[in-house]
This record gives sequence, C-alpha cells and structure tokens, in this order.
Amino acid sequence: MARTAAVIGGGVIGGGWAARFALNGWNVRVYDPDPEAERKIGEVMGNARRSLPGLTDVALPAEGAISFHSSIAEAVEGAEWIQESVPERLDIKHSTFGAIQQACDPDAVIGSSTSGFKPSELQEGAARPGQIMVAHPFNPVYLLPLVELVPGDAGDAALIEVAKATLSSLGMYPLHLRKEIDAHVADRFLEAVWREALWLVKDGIATTEEIDNAIRYGFGIRWAQMGLFETYRVAGGEAGMKHFMAQFGPALKWPWTKLMDVPEFTDELVDLIAGQSDAQSGAYSIRELERIRDNNLVTMMRGLKAQDWGAGALLNAQEKLMRAGTALGARAAELPADKPVLTARRTVPLDWTDYNGHMTESRYLHAFADATDRFMEIIGCDAEYIRAGGSYFTAETHIQHLDEVHAGAVIEITTQVILGEGKKMHLWHEMREAERLLATGEHFLLHVSLETRKPAPPSAEIEAALVRFAQGHAGLPRPEGLGRAIGAAR
Amino acid sequence: MARTAAVIGGGVIGGGWAARFALNGWNVRVYDPDPEAERKIGEVMGNARRSLPGLTDVALPAEGAISFHSSIAEAVEGAEWIQESVPERLDIKHSTFGAIQQACDPDAVIGSSTSGFKPSELQEGAARPGQIMVAHPFNPVYLLPLVELVPGDAGDAALIEVAKATLSSLGMYPLHLRKEIDAHVADRFLEAVWREALWLVKDGIATTEEIDNAIRYGFGIRWAQMGLFETYRVAGGEAGMKHFMAQFGPALKWPWTKLMDVPEFTDELVDLIAGQSDAQSGAYSIRELERIRDNNLVTMMRGLKAQDWGAGALLNAQEKLMRAGTALGARAAELPADKPVLTARRTVPLDWTDYNGHMTESRYLHAFADATDRFMEIIGCDAEYIRAGGSYFTAETHIQHLDEVHAGAVIEITTQVILGEGKKMHLWHEMREAERLLATGEHFLLHVSLETRKPAPPSAEIEAALVRFAQGHAGLPRPEGLGRAIGAAR
Repeated sequence: MARTAAVIGGGVIGGGWAARFALNGWNVRVYDPDPEAERKIGEVMGNARRSLPGLTDVALPAEGAISFHSSIAEAVEGAEWIQESVPERLDIKHSTFGAIQQACDPDAVIGSSTSGFKPSELQEGAARPGQIMVAHPFNPVYLLPLVELVPGDAGDAALIEVAKATLSSLGMYPLHLRKEIDAHVADRFLEAVWREALWLVKDGIATTEEIDNAIRYGFGIRWAQMGLFETYRVAGGEAGMKHFMAQFGPALKWPWTKLMDVPEFTDELVDLIAGQSDAQSGAYSIRELERIRDNNLVTMMRGLKAQDWGAGALLNAQEKLMRAGTALGARAAELPADKPVLTARRTVPLDWTDYNGHMTESRYLHAFADATDRFMEIIGCDAEYIRAGGSYFTAETHIQHLDEVHAGAVIEITTQVILGEGKKMHLWHEMREAERLLATGEHFLLHVSLETRKPAPPSAEIEAALVRFAQGHAGLPRPEGLGRAIGAAR
Repeated sequence: MARTAAVIGGGVIGGGWAARFALNGWNVRVYDPDPEAERKIGEVMGNARRSLPGLTDVALPAEGAISFHSSIAEAVEGAEWIQESVPERLDIKHSTFGAIQQACDPDAVIGSSTSGFKPSELQEGAARPGQIMVAHPFNPVYLLPLVELVPGDAGDAALIEVAKATLSSLGMYPLHLRKEIDAHVADRFLEAVWREALWLVKDGIATTEEIDNAIRYGFGIRWAQMGLFETYRVAGGEAGMKHFMAQFGPALKWPWTKLMDVPEFTDELVDLIAGQSDAQSGAYSIRELERIRDNNLVTMMRGLKAQDWGAGALLNAQEKLMRAGTALGARAAELPADKPVLTARRTVPLDWTDYNGHMTESRYLHAFADATDRFMEIIGCDAEYIRAGGSYFTAETHIQHLDEVHAGAVIEITTQVILGEGKKMHLWHEMREAERLLATGEHFLLHVSLETRKPAPPSAEIEAALVRFAQGHAGLPRPEGLGRAIGAAR
C-alpha cells in the first residue's frame, strides 16, 4: 500500500518535496492557504516528471496521488512523514508545529525545510520536541540528493533512523549533523560565497556573469564530484593533505576575502545585481532556465552514475533497492523459461533525446545492450564472474526502429533466446511502450576469455542456465524480422 | 608549422600547461631546475593523454614535442607564449621574469600562474611590464577551461587580445578581469569556503567527508553548470532576482558564517584535517583519485557538451574552430564524389568504455550515428534545414563488431552511399583505427517531415547532393558484409 506524506507549505521547496514523494509512489497531502498553491505545485510536478524518473535505469513505482486540504489537521492525518516548508519566521514555524502535533501520528517524522533555524529553536514549546527535526533540502528538491538532517539534542534516536532510511529510499542523502549550528553546513558556504560575490560586484571587479563563469568553468565542476577536501587532497599530490595545508596555511592571514566585513544591503546594490543578472540570463524565461538546469543536472548525474561516483553512486544504491524482490533483480532459477524474459523497465531519460525531439538512435542500442547485460546477469554472467575473467562480446547487431519514443516514456524490453549453445548466444529483444512496439534488437554474442580476448566456453552453470532458456523459448513463435537483412523486401 | 610555448616551472600546474599546449599541437620547451621535473611532467602528460583528447568529437592535432632545457634563456627562445609557474614568492617571480625578458621575443605573452599576486606586483621593476599578465588556471589544467586573465593597468592592449585568442584556441575560457584584486576572483571564493570549512571541522560540526558530501550532493552540482547568480535567479522564480535578494538580504546580518573571524592555523588543526581526509579518501592512491576525478570531469563535460551549455558549450565552440577549413567542416561540393567520405575523426573518450575495458557496444552506434549526422550536414540536411521541418530518420541498422578499441584511440569513419534516391538513403560506414577495421555500420534512413512524422521527399538541393555521391560511389567495390543477416554463414 502507498505510504503517505504531508507537505505543509507549497511553493518551490514544498512543491519539490511533494514531487519527490509522489514520483516515488507516496500519496501526498498538501496544506497551503495560498490559493495559487495547486497551480504552483502542478508546475513543479511538471518539471519533476520530465527529469526525475529517467535518472535511474529502473522505472519508479506508479506515481502517488497529490491531494489538497483545507486544514493542517486534515493534511497530516495518516502521514508517516510531515514536511514543513512555511516562511522563515519562528512564530509561524511554532504555530505550524503546534497545529501539526495536535493532529498527527506521534510516530511520524516532522521535518522542517528551514535553512537558518536550529532544531532547538524549532522545538521550543513543542508538545513532543523529539519528533521535530531539521530536514533541509536543496533546490531542485526532486533532483538534488542532499538533505541536512539536524535533530538537535532533543531528537528521538529511533525516529532519526526512520528518517534516514526514508530519505535514502527516496534517493536522497541524509547528512546527519550531530551538533546544531546556525544555517547548518551547506548554507554557511553559500552565505560566505554570496557575501564575497556581492562585494566583487559592488566594487566593480566582476559582473554576475563573470562570477558565474569563474565558478562553472573552474572549481564548480570539480566540486560537483569531489567537494572541497578531496579535491585539495588530489591537488596536494603524493605529499598529501598536510603538505597542501602547509602550502596554503599562510594565506589564511592574507586579505584573500572580504569576509571580515559585510556589504551594506542597499537598493543600489540590489539594482546593480538584478540588472547584471538580466543582462546575463534575461534571454531565457525562468521556466526555460529551470528546464536547462534540469537537463544539465540529469546528464551530469547520469554520467556520474556510469562512473559509480558521487551523486551517481547514490542513484546506483537506490536502484539496487528498487530491483530487490522484483523480476529485475531475479536470477534464472526464479524466472519461467517458457516465455520471453523481462530485461528492462525504465524511463527514457532527458539526455537520451536528440535534435529531432525523440530518443536518439544510439540510445536504442544502449537500452538493448543494458538488457543484454541484465540477461547475462540472470544466467550468471554477473560482475563477479566478469572480474574472474569471462564475459560475452557482441559480434553483430541488427536494429529495426519501428516507432518514435520520447523522454519520460516508460519502456520495457523482453528478451527471447534464439540460440544458446557453447560459446554462442543469439538474442532477440523487443522494446515496447505499453503495447506499442518501438524497436527490435537482434544480437549475436560470443563468450570470451578476457585474458586472451578470444572465444572460449562459458562456465557450466552459465551454459546450463542459457540452454534452459533456449529450450524453453524454442516453442515460442519466430519473431517477425528475425534474420532480416537491410535492403530485403519487407 | 607547430607553435611553441615555454613552461617555466613544472609541477602539477606547469605540467598541466605543458600537457594542454602539447596535446593541442604546440611544441613545449620546459625549464625547471628540479631533477624530477621530467618524471613529474610525464605523469601529468599521462593523465592528460587519457582524458583530454576525447573531450571533443574531433581529434586534436598531432601532439607537439616536449623538450627540457637547462636555462630559462634556452627555454623561451622562439616561444609565442611563456607560462611562469614558479613558487609563490615575489622575489622568485621577479628574478624569473628578469631572466625571461632578457631572452624572449618582446611580442610573446608572458603568463603567470600565480593564485595570489596582482599583476602590478609581478610587473614591478620589469623591463617590459606590459608583457607580463596573470593567467591563472585551475587544476587539472588540461581539463578545466577557466583561466583568470589579469593584465593590470600596464597591460598591452594588443597582447591581451592575442592572449585571449590563444587561450580560446586551447579550449580554455579567458576570464578577463579589468581591475586587479588580491587572489583574483575564484580563489577568493575558495578561500572563503576553505576558512569556513576549517571552522566547521575545528568546532566538530562536520568531518571533511561530511563537508564534501554537503557540497557535491547539493550546490556543487548546481554550480558546475550555472554558477551562483543564475542558480539564484532560477530559485527566485518568476518574481525575479530582486525578490530573491529581498528574501535573503536580511541574512547578511545573521551569524551564518564565521568569516568575520579567521581560524588559527595550528598543528592540531592540520592533524585533525589530515586525519579525517585519510579516513575519507585513504582507500585510493592519489593517482587513482586523479583518474577518478578526470573520468568524472570528462563524463560531466561531455554531458554538458550534448546540452551545449557551460563548459560543454566551450567544447562545441572549440570544435567548430577545429573543423573549419578541414574535410570535417566541408560541404558536398568541396568533396570528391568518387570515394568514400571521411565523416568522423575522433578520439574515443574515457566515458565510452565499459566493464570489459573497451569501447562499449552502443558507442559504436553513437559514433556511426554522428557520422550519419555529419553526412547529412554535408548534403545540406543541417541544423537550419532541420529547424525548417525536414530530417532523416533511421529505419534499420546492422552493425558488425570486428575488433576492440580502447579509450584514447583515434578512430576514423568513412561513408559510402549504397542507395540515394527520393526519400531513401542507404549508407555503409566503416570504422578504423589507422588501418585496422573495427566495425561496419549499415544504415537505412528515410527522409521525413518533422510535422507529420511521415516519409516525405527531401529538398531538391539535398536530393541532388545525395544522388551525386550515390552515382560516384556506384563504381566502388561492394562492401564485404553488405546486406548480411545475422545467422547467415560468414
């Protein structure tokens, strides 16, 4: 049964939480007195639907329902997780928590999206302080994994573990801070950089665009994958972190930042920044910028996924959880051998489309090759077996592109064994969106020794598992297009 | 003829410059009194050779020669660009510039890699101050595009333009700062974050690993593509940058950073950080971390390239320069029609390999599909034509994987037209590494209307260009494997 979350306060952050929960199959109950809340959350959902589901190579569960409620009491009823994203005023936060705790399950997690308040401040005067914790996400909440989880000294230990497990199941990364501090961790860095950047613009050293370029063409892309300390560890070379610190230690005394000082927040400064920002980005609407940003995040995160690193390693961990207990995680013996095998169920990611607006041709083979890998895993040719020196190499492929498909579509691939004996494996993949046949992939593979790079017999276990499917599939109808050559009459 | 750069001072930064120049076809003359310099630069070159050449979809020119010299005078002779990367002490910098200017071409650019000194400080007492400018790169210099170019008031205007054009031709982004300031721009942000991070570790709020995770799972990946201001512009939503600033303006007065204060640089602090860094990253050697970092940077930058955004847009701009005036930039009328057409000459990028250690199967189709796109461009089906509503869709593909190829190899694709008439285009691609045939791709395409998504005739110009190649190629030998079906006897 679907789990239920309550989102108190919509807007960009609350809407992002609603999207993250709903796309992971939770029902979401929203309370926000703003009459525009439904429209605003709908817009965030639109962005989230186009970008989040394709991040992983396994389709997310069916989307949960989002409902809107006229009171906090009604919204939090039956919710396992209640996320507060109301304006950053402590009096509003306190009255919101009061209303939540009057009506909610005492075992529910109450997370606060606050960027500045400490949990001890939020918990003041609460009926059950241990239930309230900071769960500070980052925009866009539906894509970025970081959540600063700060329970404070009053936090309930068991509930903290529930919160961490829940966030991980949503593909998020709970950064559990054991000591509370103003603005937690990440926003302290953002604030430091923001203050420095305001000085640079105010003093006419650089424009907003030049500052953005100084970040994104240099350290920004380093930090996206390793952060600060690991980057410097590498920069320090074999001499190590101590050497690096000794080299840059003296700079701590040098006037390399203005941050002993804070710029005055005047109308002139606001106009200067806003004007430069218009010159830099005004050619795009905010909606266009959001989509560009999300396209960029998806392609970078999927790139890191293939490297199994950083935000991409988190996606792989989430995917493993999603495969467990489903057909996409099963081994040969658990699967019937008398019908084609389901080898993929995934959402076409944003970065798989081309200038024609549909899935680009090489991604058909990417999806078929992943399906082949999954079939290899099913019969026992898994990562461990490959490390031990055996694998299958594809010798020949024939693809029929029968219909178009777009980003966001859920596609399934089923695989039929045409021939499986000795070193040979001849597979027939069919790719569908629901009932619609999109493409077929005919693949001829040979088992090889990774040492000699030459054909060699597979292990007896693999051959037995393959032969079982080959025999089971021998009774299936011959696929249309099997053995076709290009140029032959259709 | 190859251009010549001199690199004064090796090490990680000087070696990175040497690699960037050499891999872009420059001869590089190195002076460094360190007897280990040749080994160290060789190691940087090893990293650069495996990562840089595959960033673009066009192969770089033949690598230039790197030579080592026993005096500055000898090293700078004939150099158009002289890059100083000696230790950060002003007396050493001054004596180095003195020796350089005694021997170098007065029209050469002298760039300094200094992270802290202002150009006016570097230029003090120089024979020709206008020739010396800050050209501050970011590690790894061979991959990251940012160079802060700070000529100071004494900078020679013509030479600044030469410097900017040269850096752009190397695929770098010259950020020309018109006012000098301590630590330029980017390092002021790095210093601010570094100081804040030292406090967080010292105060026991977070470990080095937690801080890195707070960066890379959250704002780091945002900044990699949009920087600070554009990110906040999007976060501000339709209400705009002024609204965003008004919302966060008051925080400027709040204790959200420690940066009014500087942590004391003690042995204890160094041990604390170094120990946490070991716990975080000690499982990898520095060499392994460098390769992981470079793999990550390559995959993210290539992802952004496909989105034509940020660091990826810079790669596309560089690639356009590289194609101009070569067969890879020519149109149909400039190419002979009686032999197969060169449609790709590229280096296999780091992120195209798989768990078997070679180019993964779907990237063969990726390369063939890019070759098809290039052939379409040659006959006039270019971006402008596609925007106007016509294109070719691939109906069917047959690939023979004949041999393995690894990251870093230069591959060429030649394309033969088997049939070109009306809506039909039947192509035969052959992929080679030098003489070695790696794969063939047989592709059947139909010209379509992008409005109806149905087959439709191409423009008369395109059909004429296609027919010219079809007729010219009719006399070529029939390719081996053409029309093959999988399962047919070889």
